[in-house]
Amino acid sequence: MTENGSTNGSDSGSPLTKEEVDAIHETWALVWSDKKNNGIEFFVKFFTHFPEAQDKFKDFKGLSIEEVRAHKKLRAHALSVFYAIKSYIDHLDDLETLTELIRKNARNHVDRKVGGKEVKWLVPPFVELLEEKTNGKVTELHKTAWTKVFDVIASISDEEIEKAK
Amino acid sequence: MTENGSTNGSDSGSPLTKEEVDAIHETWALVWSDKKNNGIEFFVKFFTHFPEAQDKFKDFKGLSIEEVRAHKKLRAHALSVFYAIKSYIDHLDDLETLTELIRKNARNHVDRKVGGKEVKWLVPPFVELLEEKTNGKVTELHKTAWTKVFDVIASISDEEIEKAK
Repeated sequence: MTENGSTNGSDSGSPLTKEEVDAIHETWALVWSDKKNNGIEFFVKFFTHFPEAQDKFKDFKGLSIEEVRAHKKLRAHALSVFYAIKSYIDHLDDLETLTELIRKNARNHVDRKVGGKEVKWLVPPFVELLEEKTNGKVTELHKTAWTKVFDVIASISDEEIEKAK
Repeated sequence: MTENGSTNGSDSGSPLTKEEVDAIHETWALVWSDKKNNGIEFFVKFFTHFPEAQDKFKDFKGLSIEEVRAHKKLRAHALSVFYAIKSYIDHLDDLETLTELIRKNARNHVDRKVGGKEVKWLVPPFVELLEEKTNGKVTELHKTAWTKVFDVIASISDEEIEKAK
């Protein structure tokens, strides 16, 4: 997972520069501080951007977006995604652990055919959530940093889909 | 959360009393503050108490306990368990979300036949870890509280095993 171009800012093989890691932590803190509500808003945005994603959740398939928002299972679904992201964000400085944490979670999603394409669906709703949380102050650095994080997750998810074939 | 009998401590249907919830948070903070190392120690104790549990992990099956301790995948395995427990501990006041968080995780373990019996294997190594972290000051209250948490996880895990039959 080493990157050899201009974006690699550390000797650890991390694809993120120090500035990008700082940008991640800074913005994640805003999301995490109200994780229950932000999780629900994130999923509502996710299904609004990609209605086909909603069909992958048997609890939510066919429901209106307002029915999803009020669904008693949405909170736990959203929180479990946020706890997974938190475990990654907490280990951006330990690439081996980070990779293995992502791999374990990717493996749990193989049956539902969640590969790289589906993981990348998370970027637009996540950036939109950040826009709201920062009152429109999301920078290019924030976007690049988070896109890289989701790219790493996407790449490992594709590997696990391939392995399972 | 008012006390309402010997085991049911709240109007929300929580099986834990307020004192037990406080005991959980107090001891969990000690574990979480050094989660990487404590996760490794916890898994080493777990496999020492229950060698048959080790066989359920294909990465660790057949290895000596020292080989497991040094295994590069142990850290992520242990951390993912701790992040799951953290998500439960953070939601002891929201039984609906708590139950659903546990259920999602239990479902991911059905294929590996992790039911209530296997979940209860976690109690002795966890209490042993707490004994170390508190310098031997684990009380009956701590033990009761954590046993109740693992009992809830065990019960939901058995339900998911049954559903999958």
